[in-house]
Amino acid sequence: MEYNKRISDMNIGEQVEGFYILKGVYPKTTASGKPFLNATLADKSGTVEAKVWNYSGPIGTGDEGKVVKIRGEVSEFRGASQIVIEKIRLAEQDDPYQVSDLVPVAPIDVDDTMREVEQLVRSIEDRDYQAICLQMLQEHYTALRNIPAAKSVHHGFLSGLLMHTANMLKTADFLAKLYADVVDRSLLLAGTFLHDFAKEKEFTFSQLGLATNYSVKGQLLGHLVMGAQEVAEVAKQLGVPEEKSVLLQHMILSHHGEPEFGAAVVPICAESELLSEIDKIDSRMEIYREVMEGLEVGEVSGRIFALEKRIYRHK
Amino acid sequence: MEYNKRISDMNIGEQVEGFYILKGVYPKTTASGKPFLNATLADKSGTVEAKVWNYSGPIGTGDEGKVVKIRGEVSEFRGASQIVIEKIRLAEQDDPYQVSDLVPVAPIDVDDTMREVEQLVRSIEDRDYQAICLQMLQEHYTALRNIPAAKSVHHGFLSGLLMHTANMLKTADFLAKLYADVVDRSLLLAGTFLHDFAKEKEFTFSQLGLATNYSVKGQLLGHLVMGAQEVAEVAKQLGVPEEKSVLLQHMILSHHGEPEFGAAVVPICAESELLSEIDKIDSRMEIYREVMEGLEVGEVSGRIFALEKRIYRHK
Amino acid sequence: MEYNKRISDMNIGEQVEGFYILKGVYPKTTASGKPFLNATLADKSGTVEAKVWNYSGPIGTGDEGKVVKIRGEVSEFRGASQIVIEKIRLAEQDDPYQVSDLVPVAPIDVDDTMREVEQLVRSIEDRDYQAICLQMLQEHYTALRNIPAAKSVHHGFLSGLLMHTANMLKTADFLAKLYADVVDRSLLLAGTFLHDFAKEKEFTFSQLGLATNYSVKGQLLGHLVMGAQEVAEVAKQLGVPEEKSVLLQHMILSHHGEPEFGAAVVPICAESELLSEIDKIDSRMEIYREVMEGLEVGEVSGRIFALEKRIYRHK
Amino acid sequence: MEYNKRISDMNIGEQVEGFYILKGVYPKTTASGKPFLNATLADKSGTVEAKVWNYSGPIGTGDEGKVVKIRGEVSEFRGASQIVIEKIRLAEQDDPYQVSDLVPVAPIDVDDTMREVEQLVRSIEDRDYQAICLQMLQEHYTALRNIPAAKSVHHGFLSGLLMHTANMLKTADFLAKLYADVVDRSLLLAGTFLHDFAKEKEFTFSQLGLATNYSVKGQLLGHLVMGAQEVAEVAKQLGVPEEKSVLLQHMILSHHGEPEFGAAVVPICAESELLSEIDKIDSRMEIYREVMEGLEVGEVSGRIFALEKRIYRHK
Amino acid sequence: MEYNKRISDMNIGEQVEGFYILKGVYPKTTASGKPFLNATLADKSGTVEAKVWNYSGPIGTGDEGKVVKIRGEVSEFRGASQIVIEKIRLAEQDDPYQVSDLVPVAPIDVDDTMREVEQLVRSIEDRDYQAICLQMLQEHYTALRNIPAAKSVHHGFLSGLLMHTANMLKTADFLAKLYADVVDRSLLLAGTFLHDFAKEKEFTFSQLGLATNYSVKGQLLGHLVMGAQEVAEVAKQLGVPEEKSVLLQHMILSHHGEPEFGAAVVPICAESELLSEIDKIDSRMEIYREVMEGLEVGEVSGRIFALEKRIYRHK
Amino acid sequence: MEYNKRISDMNIGEQVEGFYILKGVYPKTTASGKPFLNATLADKSGTVEAKVWNYSGPIGTGDEGKVVKIRGEVSEFRGASQIVIEKIRLAEQDDPYQVSDLVPVAPIDVDDTMREVEQLVRSIEDRDYQAICLQMLQEHYTALRNIPAAKSVHHGFLSGLLMHTANMLKTADFLAKLYADVVDRSLLLAGTFLHDFAKEKEFTFSQLGLATNYSVKGQLLGHLVMGAQEVAEVAKQLGVPEEKSVLLQHMILSHHGEPEFGAAVVPICAESELLSEIDKIDSRMEIYREVMEGLEVGEVSGRIFALEKRIYRHK
Repeated sequence: MEYNKRISDMNIGEQVEGFYILKGVYPKTTASGKPFLNATLADKSGTVEAKVWNYSGPIGTGDEGKVVKIRGEVSEFRGASQIVIEKIRLAEQDDPYQVSDLVPVAPIDVDDTMREVEQLVRSIEDRDYQAICLQMLQEHYTALRNIPAAKSVHHGFLSGLLMHTANMLKTADFLAKLYADVVDRSLLLAGTFLHDFAKEKEFTFSQLGLATNYSVKGQLLGHLVMGAQEVAEVAKQLGVPEEKSVLLQHMILSHHGEPEFGAAVVPICAESELLSEIDKIDSRMEIYREVMEGLEVGEVSGRIFALEKRIYRHK
Repeated sequence: MEYNKRISDMNIGEQVEGFYILKGVYPKTTASGKPFLNATLADKSGTVEAKVWNYSGPIGTGDEGKVVKIRGEVSEFRGASQIVIEKIRLAEQDDPYQVSDLVPVAPIDVDDTMREVEQLVRSIEDRDYQAICLQMLQEHYTALRNIPAAKSVHHGFLSGLLMHTANMLKTADFLAKLYADVVDRSLLLAGTFLHDFAKEKEFTFSQLGLATNYSVKGQLLGHLVMGAQEVAEVAKQLGVPEEKSVLLQHMILSHHGEPEFGAAVVPICAESELLSEIDKIDSRMEIYREVMEGLEVGEVSGRIFALEKRIYRHK
Repeated sequence: MEYNKRISDMNIGEQVEGFYILKGVYPKTTASGKPFLNATLADKSGTVEAKVWNYSGPIGTGDEGKVVKIRGEVSEFRGASQIVIEKIRLAEQDDPYQVSDLVPVAPIDVDDTMREVEQLVRSIEDRDYQAICLQMLQEHYTALRNIPAAKSVHHGFLSGLLMHTANMLKTADFLAKLYADVVDRSLLLAGTFLHDFAKEKEFTFSQLGLATNYSVKGQLLGHLVMGAQEVAEVAKQLGVPEEKSVLLQHMILSHHGEPEFGAAVVPICAESELLSEIDKIDSRMEIYREVMEGLEVGEVSGRIFALEKRIYRHK
Repeated sequence: MEYNKRISDMNIGEQVEGFYILKGVYPKTTASGKPFLNATLADKSGTVEAKVWNYSGPIGTGDEGKVVKIRGEVSEFRGASQIVIEKIRLAEQDDPYQVSDLVPVAPIDVDDTMREVEQLVRSIEDRDYQAICLQMLQEHYTALRNIPAAKSVHHGFLSGLLMHTANMLKTADFLAKLYADVVDRSLLLAGTFLHDFAKEKEFTFSQLGLATNYSVKGQLLGHLVMGAQEVAEVAKQLGVPEEKSVLLQHMILSHHGEPEFGAAVVPICAESELLSEIDKIDSRMEIYREVMEGLEVGEVSGRIFALEKRIYRHK
Repeated sequence: MEYNKRISDMNIGEQVEGFYILKGVYPKTTASGKPFLNATLADKSGTVEAKVWNYSGPIGTGDEGKVVKIRGEVSEFRGASQIVIEKIRLAEQDDPYQVSDLVPVAPIDVDDTMREVEQLVRSIEDRDYQAICLQMLQEHYTALRNIPAAKSVHHGFLSGLLMHTANMLKTADFLAKLYADVVDRSLLLAGTFLHDFAKEKEFTFSQLGLATNYSVKGQLLGHLVMGAQEVAEVAKQLGVPEEKSVLLQHMILSHHGEPEFGAAVVPICAESELLSEIDKIDSRMEIYREVMEGLEVGEVSGRIFALEKRIYRHK
Repeated sequence: MEYNKRISDMNIGEQVEGFYILKGVYPKTTASGKPFLNATLADKSGTVEAKVWNYSGPIGTGDEGKVVKIRGEVSEFRGASQIVIEKIRLAEQDDPYQVSDLVPVAPIDVDDTMREVEQLVRSIEDRDYQAICLQMLQEHYTALRNIPAAKSVHHGFLSGLLMHTANMLKTADFLAKLYADVVDRSLLLAGTFLHDFAKEKEFTFSQLGLATNYSVKGQLLGHLVMGAQEVAEVAKQLGVPEEKSVLLQHMILSHHGEPEFGAAVVPICAESELLSEIDKIDSRMEIYREVMEGLEVGEVSGRIFALEKRIYRHK
């Protein structure tokens, strides 16, 4: 028996034992009155349904999102795999499992990427924009390092926001030079760095760090308005001239490009126009990357909801 | 000769003398090198083109928006009336003219309406929402009393914002009672009262108080975001619980109803849904009122840009 | 054993006995050739699946929509409750059940509301419009009192049309006074009163009075055109001047506001514009009411199809 | 000097004399107080501006749409031709002019086409549909023979409705045979014959028979609803079964195909679907015909408003 | 026992034996480790699920789309019919089954229709257009005779492209005469004949000739561009003047009418405009025919995806 | 008197002499029968109207787009400048004027940029894609060097296509490295290099090289389809595998991103997705550059047609 077998590798008939995320749990009663659990287990390779017969606790609804240790057998139920669990308990502090085996993480070196981002921020020539960015970096250091940038669609893994921000900053840096006669590099880089910071408040996160839902505040105000508001406050504290503060807020408020994609105002500066394009490019390339991982060369995908089309992998 | 004759009543061939707004002025030179002025004069009944031959100053581009005294004769030029001005000077402090004859004003009693608005604000049961409203009323008292709610489309006259706000508050009060099991009256009235306050910053105003253009800040941030931001600050100063502050900001951010009409977020509470409807009703009824003033009974208008259709006056 | 237990309160393992609506019924045969029934039972609290083993009649497809008396046990089938029925028969005239326990009804006092509506109709100053309304009230008295205003979305319960009409008339009355210089109150109230009368012909109704489907005529002509047509006929019978008849037809034909929402023509009078807004307000407030009943305070709903968004309950 | 020279053939410097339509007339006064007329003259080849100096009547605004006899000289004014008129009077009954030289008429033989239409109507197998059509033909004989089908876009000339109806009936006849297993020929031909009859009420017509404007009733109800209503009445008089009446009304109500193109309901029968396509084909082919008349072979037109594109003439 | 019983006629409990298409096949293992097959069988009347217990081959995934001979019993599984198969083997060359009983075919006489099409092609007066068409007819003779015009929506059966092309050519012929002053008959017929030829390359086909999927090339280029490209090559080979080649390519590139329906360019000639309408008519009439086959007279269908509405069968 | 004074610097009353483009010319006759010319002159700073009294040739309509030498005086006519020309003749071969003073040219060093482009093309690793690009570069060398990329909107000056292509290639090169795991650099660079080559055939050009209009072929087929077709032919000549040819055609056919922006198919590869974004970025940045040249710092532009909004210059 292989311990901690990846869910995507399990076969019907196998015995399995190991640590998995208890993604969902539904206590039930059989027709004959006996308690049992329906559960969903997950690791970073996928999810699988499970059943614990004759089980009345202690694990229950309040434990969703935690790690459990289980032992059981993979069987078939209505055409899909299902683990019939014999033993289940919550994982403890010293248990031998790696969070990184259970939750998906960005395919980057987090320390290196944080350094790259910080270097680009320090390269912002305008002292005011730089000061705001450094202040925000300090206040949100841990969040930037760790949180995903989405629930699912793209960058929905640990450090997803960092990966997204770093890629975009590099492109912003390149385009600021290419269009140097049109674009203020300091404004473009500052806006790019800050554009998604309020995602930290827009989502609620599970114990393991994944975005599980939109927060109520996130749904009432949106991360664009929340982000602009925080930047306005920091700018005021630091004594940055109002014109710069307003331009930076405009960058954040308009970075979805069009009202129908959620922009609170439309971009009307070269820098905000460019930011919305850079955001779109990085989002789309990441969607292609994630979808193409699941395709063979020469295969066309099913319909991708976020793109409203199928895509093709040719290499 | 009739003094201060309304522009809409002038006939070709008449001598005119009086005070008018110098809406536009364009210093020119004839082919033979002589200086003259092309000008546009306005009062609240309309506008008329004018010419001042052989004139090199002192009146010039810097005087647009001011009141002038003129004397001249109404002639015809390419099918339209044109005043050939013999004398022109800037109006002085003691000159015998009424601003209310020159600029359009809301068809309401301003003092009474201010009182009605204040009473409705004081009727807000929730102390926190009421406190924010009273603070904002105090800080923006003069603006609320005086400014128009638009450049042209509807309520584009002095005290237009007040008229719009008062009508909407009355409807909000009525509907809060009709839908009392769904709607929090305090939130609805507070949001209604505050929804357009940032128009003061969204526009620039002429010396006589009319909205002449969008401010740069207004175009970069929009009055929805600016309004929400100010309310957030006042709420923080007054120690209002964050949940209420967020709900009130949501009211303001969503009051245009749909992203394509400029909403920064879509309304997701009964109160914000209702506010967007009340705003639409008062805007549309005012457009009907303004357009129907220029129609005969039984007449259909030309295409109304803001409504994307023609309208019919039957009474 | 509790008689007539509400479906939403049933638990697995309980014995139940009582009267329920036979919403759907599907006679089947087992692999071994034995006849049985799959059925759906309903009361006003919800629906539940049921099975009657070894049953070959007399109840069958022709009895859908009728009331049945059943006895059985609540079990679990594939994760959902299911009643295994031991006894089933059609309800008879003297059986001790209340229709109001089985079908949802409007949360209003029907007699009071009918009186309010009639009073508002009698308050219409214009004798012609009033006459048409009184005639229509007389002809459709029972339908107005009883029918739902929809299959499901909003006001889909007994007396739903009455509740919707009464609310809208009150708002119309209020707004007619607020915008008295723009709006003809008689036309507005008459149009509001009559706007949905043809729903009686647009739907087919079950024995218990709920709207079960669109009628063929309803799908070929729509309730707007059918409503306008009937008003045109009544106006002709009563000798009402054609101009008034045409205005009233226009109110009904345009009350969905925009072609993409089903308006046969766009509203081009202040009164028809207002009617379409009032209709939208009452529809939306009722959707909020119905959805919020199923939400906790602080909870965000799932996506509401009719609103194309999620909504939030904060009080 | 050539009498009744076509306006499109006039050259600057020529003397002209003849009968033209007084399309517009604007009495004016010069700066020096002298009365004169600005006028627009038209024949079927086009329009030209004109001036009558020192003229104070009797011809005035009330004579728009009538025929006048004029004499004058073609001159140039701001880059366009303009007739300076020396003599002008209203045409009298016995004056030697042909209406057909002045107003555009359909390029068809009206008597022949009426006969073709009547034959197709008489070929409708279903006695009920045929009876309705014959009754309507009798009541609207003169209108069908004479009126245009539009103000301008397509078929905006005398007998335009007849030309449009005849072409569509021929196509309906052809397609009813091709799709005989799907389509009820009687319903298709009856709907096609009747679909635009209410244009007679939707427009107001000049003395010479051209559509000059939408009638108020036309704007409040639309020709689809008015047409369906009249058919409903005729059907009732003739004792036609309601189902057939409803189907025929549905044909008329849905013949614009999509709500955004003005359909009161969407077509849901094969016959109404087909009618909306046949209408679109004949409308578009006539637009191509009219536009291509003004193009050289190998030329691309300017933007055609009704088609939202430019078109190309290759033969 | 009836051999080759139509799937739509099978009843639970019957023994069946015969030839069916193996539409899908999924080798599985039971929880206890025994191999079995889940399969989908089809004939032209419909599809049915099937199970082969204790089966490990030789039939497997590679045999999808082939014909099999089976024997088994119809049972019920979760409310649907399911054949429990006792014997299964691939059909062999001399087996007594008809492809036409298994796959749907166009309800036309293929030989007659090919003759009609060829006659219409030979009636094209312009020698260049005719030459291109004859060359294409020769090269694609078998495909035109046999392939479906779609995967499912309409004409998704054998010889579907032929039926669609023949109907459209007849309508094109009729309309070319009706609008002879606007339309070049040769261009219209040639474009109509060729417009869908590249469907042969846009789809992949099963062994039995049905369209199973879009080819990669079809998704990268589309049948409009592929069709235009092939016509351009043939025209070059035959020495046809470039202007005619370009017009014919334009016909093919624009035949979907609007960009949102897939047109590569919008139609700007009368002929391409007409082609897009004729295509729409034949597609829609075929959808009506196919949907109405499954409806009773007086019945309204469920929502038809391709039409975005429900349809009504009245005859 | 200053020779060759820039049109934007001319003042009323000045004598001018020099070489200008004869952009438009309209031979006319005065009311008294005398011939004269209305003309439009242009240099790269702008345009001005002109009149040549008593002139009957030889210059006429056939000379539009050529360079003329003129002498005259700047006067005022209806509020705008107008040159009254005394002498006018066509420019001859040896005349001392620079085309670059008359027509706008890209603000780049053409030789350097051609070299950069060629280097990037030679850096394409895939030999097949490189071969196609080099072949196309050789065949279209002069066009790529010289033609504008548009009539007006953006890059509407000499060497505009080169500037646009070079900028896009640099960005493609950068992004191909950033997204190396998703993107085939060879395909991206080849598609970018070739995407607009068919603009050479889509436009007609004046003698001086500016795009004056769309060609008929350009309107019937579009530059996307024409470009893909030429690439298909070159690929076939060079023996490139069909799969690569199809991918490259797909790049060109989809580079407008969405059907409503003119894409013949939607991009479904990472490379085509990216190409459409890069194209949008360079187009938009160039529009910002061109518009901002005419704005002061702190100024908001008028509505920019191509962007559907106003833009703001803050630096």
